[in-house]
Amino acid sequence: MAETDQALPPSDQLAAMNLTDTVEKHAFSDRVLIRSIVGRPDGGAGLAGQRVRAGGWVKTGREQGKGTFAFLELNDGSCPANLQVIVDAGLAVLSKLVATGTCVVVDGILKVPPEGTRQKIELRVEKVVSVGEVDPAKYPIPKTKLTLEFLRDHLHLRARTNTIAAIARIRNALAFATHSFFQEHNFLYVHTPILTTSDCEGAGEMFQVTTLISESEKLEKELIKNPPPSEVDIEAARQVVSERGEAVKQLKAAKASKSEITASVAELNKAKENLSKLEERSKLKSGIPKKDGKIDYTQDFFARQAFLTVSGQLQVETYACAVSNVYTFGPTFRAEHSHTSRHLAEFWMVEPEIAFADLQDDMNCAEAYVKYMCNWLLDKCLDDMQFMAKSYDKGCIDRLRMVASIPFVRISYTEAVELLEEAVKGGKKFENEVKWGIDLASEHERYLTEVKFQKPVIVYNYPKGIKAFYMRLNDDLKTVAAMDVLVPKVGELIGGSQREERYEVIRERILEVGLPLEPYEWYLDLRRYGTVKHCGFGLGFERMILFATGIENIRDVIPFPRYPGRADL
Amino acid sequence: MAETDQALPPSDQLAAMNLTDTVEKHAFSDRVLIRSIVGRPDGGAGLAGQRVRAGGWVKTGREQGKGTFAFLELNDGSCPANLQVIVDAGLAVLSKLVATGTCVVVDGILKVPPEGTRQKIELRVEKVVSVGEVDPAKYPIPKTKLTLEFLRDHLHLRARTNTIAAIARIRNALAFATHSFFQEHNFLYVHTPILTTSDCEGAGEMFQVTTLISESEKLEKELIKNPPPSEVDIEAARQVVSERGEAVKQLKAAKASKSEITASVAELNKAKENLSKLEERSKLKSGIPKKDGKIDYTQDFFARQAFLTVSGQLQVETYACAVSNVYTFGPTFRAEHSHTSRHLAEFWMVEPEIAFADLQDDMNCAEAYVKYMCNWLLDKCLDDMQFMAKSYDKGCIDRLRMVASIPFVRISYTEAVELLEEAVKGGKKFENEVKWGIDLASEHERYLTEVKFQKPVIVYNYPKGIKAFYMRLNDDLKTVAAMDVLVPKVGELIGGSQREERYEVIRERILEVGLPLEPYEWYLDLRRYGTVKHCGFGLGFERMILFATGIENIRDVIPFPRYPGRADL
Repeated sequence: MAETDQALPPSDQLAAMNLTDTVEKHAFSDRVLIRSIVGRPDGGAGLAGQRVRAGGWVKTGREQGKGTFAFLELNDGSCPANLQVIVDAGLAVLSKLVATGTCVVVDGILKVPPEGTRQKIELRVEKVVSVGEVDPAKYPIPKTKLTLEFLRDHLHLRARTNTIAAIARIRNALAFATHSFFQEHNFLYVHTPILTTSDCEGAGEMFQVTTLISESEKLEKELIKNPPPSEVDIEAARQVVSERGEAVKQLKAAKASKSEITASVAELNKAKENLSKLEERSKLKSGIPKKDGKIDYTQDFFARQAFLTVSGQLQVETYACAVSNVYTFGPTFRAEHSHTSRHLAEFWMVEPEIAFADLQDDMNCAEAYVKYMCNWLLDKCLDDMQFMAKSYDKGCIDRLRMVASIPFVRISYTEAVELLEEAVKGGKKFENEVKWGIDLASEHERYLTEVKFQKPVIVYNYPKGIKAFYMRLNDDLKTVAAMDVLVPKVGELIGGSQREERYEVIRERILEVGLPLEPYEWYLDLRRYGTVKHCGFGLGFERMILFATGIENIRDVIPFPRYPGRADL
Repeated sequence: MAETDQALPPSDQLAAMNLTDTVEKHAFSDRVLIRSIVGRPDGGAGLAGQRVRAGGWVKTGREQGKGTFAFLELNDGSCPANLQVIVDAGLAVLSKLVATGTCVVVDGILKVPPEGTRQKIELRVEKVVSVGEVDPAKYPIPKTKLTLEFLRDHLHLRARTNTIAAIARIRNALAFATHSFFQEHNFLYVHTPILTTSDCEGAGEMFQVTTLISESEKLEKELIKNPPPSEVDIEAARQVVSERGEAVKQLKAAKASKSEITASVAELNKAKENLSKLEERSKLKSGIPKKDGKIDYTQDFFARQAFLTVSGQLQVETYACAVSNVYTFGPTFRAEHSHTSRHLAEFWMVEPEIAFADLQDDMNCAEAYVKYMCNWLLDKCLDDMQFMAKSYDKGCIDRLRMVASIPFVRISYTEAVELLEEAVKGGKKFENEVKWGIDLASEHERYLTEVKFQKPVIVYNYPKGIKAFYMRLNDDLKTVAAMDVLVPKVGELIGGSQREERYEVIRERILEVGLPLEPYEWYLDLRRYGTVKHCGFGLGFERMILFATGIENIRDVIPFPRYPGRADL
């Protein structure tokens, strides 16, 4: 038997697993992360004998041995697994520790539990350092099966549940994967504006941002506390001015002393000043300022109407047409009254933009990015993905593996419509009619990716009539170089296009769709001066999380969901 | 002489420098990044003989040799250095290539230029692939020294200048450094909401977000196109209903056929429906909806007043009190009418929040984070930093090195005031009076960090009267566990605190500062249930860029600055 095949002693096994036998110290806290114990490949067993301080919230707790000790399942959010903690009655009032949601910090020694238990390690407490108590009768999210819908009414506490914490870790992983992917590929992260005076699509309901209402309310309050002068007040002030003027005249006529005249002139000036102040105040009117019957936006904060962005694309193009490879990752907004499980009023979008690149490059980038995110989750969040698979969507891990490894199908819109028409002939029923020229409905997209191909599908070259003006017109003059990435579970995940870089063509397209040229002059400048072939796409970040986790409602994959009628906190 | 000391042949030298001798391919474009040529340690010399496609914008161009060839300095934004390109007259109309801002894509062969030139490599063009022309007479930012102020009027083109492009790369580097730092330390990135119904500080001017104005304008237009029914119209409709009712009655009385009666009832119902529609429409009034003289926010999108966030802190605390280590990095807003070089209406903030941690941990984290960013720039952006040092701030690289290496001074607010008082005694003049209890003014902060210590200073334990209610009250009952990080060049870079985790104390503090309890009940819940010691801070991201680059005006370090009267694009 060769030496390397011999059974290694336990400590060497650990060394082979590249584990140290001391717990990783938290850089900015005196406690250790629970993940650094139970998140190890050995479940923490190799740390037996170590003294540590741990802190977290009790998931479940129970007194045992007739109240002589308590078991606590402690979780600090660093991983889905809990640390089992055992506290003897002599160290604390056990009844104050066991309620779900209680925060405890304890010092203790790690021990291997008796054979036959699930845990690989447990913490024997030597000292209870601090307790943040919970009155279980009042705690809004006590242990029991709580629905995601119920938790939406308790946004400030729901991250303490296993599900919302797992989603938070997956969301975090996908966000960092996004940055890592684009940074590795030399893209610059550009912060496009949230406040905008441009409307990207010329459509879409936008939120207006203003200080006019608060300014007018402030003024209204001020005028109640301190009413504007009446005509009588002003007339009286005018009277004073005229009297003071007369006084000055008389003193001058009487050749009074210089100091007397100076004093009198000063009084006159004071009276004039008072009058002009009163006249100014008398013009103040409460209510939103108007001019010619319309709201006077020159008095708004930005001296014009301002909105929340619906997309950073047009703005980020100005950077692509200067520094080549860029992306934006930030919040976007739609004031649509959609009460579906797929829409939010505030959501996050990732929008790369690539210069010197065409639609093929765009598809390559989109596919590489989605695969990268899938691999990232499989690499770094497998424990959370296992939790999602167990609790919500059995197939979610297999779906990630499939998407990470299989080349995406690429078909033209025309081919897609043909396939759908074939399906209809074969007996498939769609609610929306299928014919060339329609915008593919969600049911069509899901059929293609979930039934027909059972893998991601990129559909490209859409009819120009259903797409935005900035997409590049193909040589057939009927279609544009657009592409959508469809994936099982959510349908459309990504929408993108090669941008129209030809000045004359895009100018014509703006007019053709009935938009005014003036607001787009800056956008046209990018084509007027040093124009460049470029493309880009947008990925709805919450859709990616729905795709990854199998969660059904988009309101559960963003920390603070905003939708019609609700914006808690 | 040992073998390793022998002069290596050129190719081995390159191998020793860990360079490959082929140009790195761009993943999503058929051209190579200019950085992958001129950004190499050897300036690209080792790539001589390689055929590449390059694209970029012309920084300067000139025809030479009586128009037989042209020199172009090409830049694609991937690094501050340009690629020198030589095009023979036979390949293109040279006059169309040389204007600043022209976009060119060329195929060519890399060659070592003649001795005595600055470049280590140049591209001999074999084919001009495409040209995006510029009319130099019309180009808004032709080559010449352009002021940063002038460029602010051309936001959509300014990223094509060396300065704004360098700032974009530095900003990108600092953003990714931020994510890398917190991810390395096991913090979760949490997207706090932009739209909020809470006011973090109870102060600060906030932007209001509404759909009431647009809805009322939509209605107004609709009512002009399609005026509401008059009283006469409604009376006529009522008449129809009564006639139809009568008709039904008569048919029933006459025992008409079932089909006749059914038809008559249908007509009656139609008339009733029409009447109720008219009555409904007659109630429509243009203008913002009001109730009891006040704006009726129940009709706004979120059924209540909504604002743009001024800080994500309170919301991110809900995650810290559940998953321990979190940070937020996103846009924040202030509707202040500040016209200074240090304020923006929209700016980005980084706000970590750490559970199981106190003010010391907070200071440790802030110092480590700032040092990490400085090291990151020195490591990854030295070429851009050299450009900033040459063009704007000679000392900026030394400042980064100093901050990265020297421990920050830590003094209490009380000590800081004593030092300032000493300075005043020594003859130093401040505009703002110095005495215990004042909020330190910018001049005081800059004195401490730039004159007194000449390095970063953390001031901690401020009087409670000048700080927010959520900061932890110290045992002296006079000060709170707050801390500010002051750095040379910008003064306050970071503000943070340990948060008050004691329910009774924070409740008292809210009342003491005159705030209502009700909007903070959710925040109080974090202390009511499983409370935990925690702390955090906020870093103004644009301030960090000002600090790093030495740029004077904050409007130049954000891609799309928003300030009173301006929100271009």
